[in-house]
Amino acid sequence: MSPRKAVAIGGGTGLPLVLGCLLRGGFDPTAVVTVADDGGSSGHLRRELGMLPPGDIRNCLAALAEPGNELARVFQYRFAEGEGLAGHALGNLIIAALADLEGGFAEAVEEAGRLLGVRGRVLPSTLADVVLSGRDSAGRLVRGQANVAESEGPITTVSLDLTSVPAYTPALEALQAADVILIGPGSLFTSIIPNFLVDGIIKAVRESTATAIYVCNVGNLRGETTGMNAADHVDALMRHGLAGAIDVALVDSSTDPEHGTHVTGGLEAVARIEALGIRAVSADLADRANPMRHDPDRLFSALGGVW
Amino acid sequence: MSPRKAVAIGGGTGLPLVLGCLLRGGFDPTAVVTVADDGGSSGHLRRELGMLPPGDIRNCLAALAEPGNELARVFQYRFAEGEGLAGHALGNLIIAALADLEGGFAEAVEEAGRLLGVRGRVLPSTLADVVLSGRDSAGRLVRGQANVAESEGPITTVSLDLTSVPAYTPALEALQAADVILIGPGSLFTSIIPNFLVDGIIKAVRESTATAIYVCNVGNLRGETTGMNAADHVDALMRHGLAGAIDVALVDSSTDPEHGTHVTGGLEAVARIEALGIRAVSADLADRANPMRHDPDRLFSALGGVW
Repeated sequence: MSPRKAVAIGGGTGLPLVLGCLLRGGFDPTAVVTVADDGGSSGHLRRELGMLPPGDIRNCLAALAEPGNELARVFQYRFAEGEGLAGHALGNLIIAALADLEGGFAEAVEEAGRLLGVRGRVLPSTLADVVLSGRDSAGRLVRGQANVAESEGPITTVSLDLTSVPAYTPALEALQAADVILIGPGSLFTSIIPNFLVDGIIKAVRESTATAIYVCNVGNLRGETTGMNAADHVDALMRHGLAGAIDVALVDSSTDPEHGTHVTGGLEAVARIEALGIRAVSADLADRANPMRHDPDRLFSALGGVW
Repeated sequence: MSPRKAVAIGGGTGLPLVLGCLLRGGFDPTAVVTVADDGGSSGHLRRELGMLPPGDIRNCLAALAEPGNELARVFQYRFAEGEGLAGHALGNLIIAALADLEGGFAEAVEEAGRLLGVRGRVLPSTLADVVLSGRDSAGRLVRGQANVAESEGPITTVSLDLTSVPAYTPALEALQAADVILIGPGSLFTSIIPNFLVDGIIKAVRESTATAIYVCNVGNLRGETTGMNAADHVDALMRHGLAGAIDVALVDSSTDPEHGTHVTGGLEAVARIEALGIRAVSADLADRANPMRHDPDRLFSALGGVW
């Protein structure tokens, strides 16, 4: 029997986390990754080399690299010093070089995957050079992914600057063929939702027979979701076209009264999510050492009950 | 029968050329490579990251990489643009990252060799952070490898700024165990001789039972050897301690009257070399398309007659 196919869609550090869970669960994994990032090493390479941002994709490639692959470790190395080098992850530079040699970003990601012996696939959600903008709860417009992420007040909506953003076809095909689709965790407005602003992605999620599971964050790591609980996160997805597309929301039941940035997934939030026709699964997911993050083992266990 | 062991000692673009000949000749090859370089991408990394210059070593690793190794091509990629990136060879950045991860330059070169599936070995002649200085025929002192190379008048002697420069032990061991030692081709004062300024290298060449073959340049590519013929090249080696260490000098017999930078290996030069007790082998070695360089096939044929 061939392994079940799973697509994890998102970006940032959340996507590698769930890819690890998918490998442990014996799935054939595909990552569908946002390319809206414009900060840090990725943003620098976008501006300097006119390429798509490689950082989130690099982290997914590293998460799926074959165990013991000798390139994987150096792929994740980040220069601490050196004019023009400090801050760059070496893997970003390798993807940049491959993009030039192979004649395209998608080809570069594929070749990097071969070099790392990646299990499964890593696919950008689009090959379009998009700029993300957001509107905060006070109605202010914020332009650029890094600026949206660091917004002081919570964001209500995000959009791309192009009226039509074609999806990368293999990403659509992977979604359509999936048995399980994991959405998140990750920065809601700057890593997760940008993927769904790409033409055809939501339609592919809806049309697939997969169980679509939203893995809600346990902490509001960035300004963009200040004060939002788990139901507010789900509401934001609904507002961006995902009504009817999500089957299950996995939310954190842990209580962390000392931590004002906890994304509460308590009774009130669960009730609001269920009222949307989404099955809310509540579990204690937070990492004890870092309650802003999922504990990988707890997340894996909880996912095992729903996928 | 195990393959004969050959060591090629030098730097620059000459060393990869003879490494290719050694592979074609069925030898087990070791490159012993200068680390005196301070120009270009290598010089930038020396200054910015406090590491030894990786460029010459990178070219040797690429020359010895297993055929079809997927990393080898991207290893030789050079960034054409990008602030702080333009001019850097990706392989230099990979060696830099490995040097930090592995805790040393020699370890980084060894690990890069593993990643590339290198046949044979690539070894720096020393791990000391040396600065090369030269004195030109007018008695002027020139400091720094890149400055020596671009000297207007010919250089007469070069030296390192440290009174004692320990050799990298595996390089000495490789020379002692060699059946054949190839010296050059390459920039005489800035790629070849710096290796022999390292303590113990000349002694190891002398004590080995190897046939030591000096492959003289066919063109004076850089200012450092302006106007020097093949015998003048050999004289410079003698002046730097190699008297009695070289068995054969392979010189270019081709005539190129239009080319003032040709390193003549004609009758007069041959007679002067033979007078030093060195067997002079004269052959038509110049590349027809680029008479400043050796033709690889002609060089391979000529070497076949002497090693």
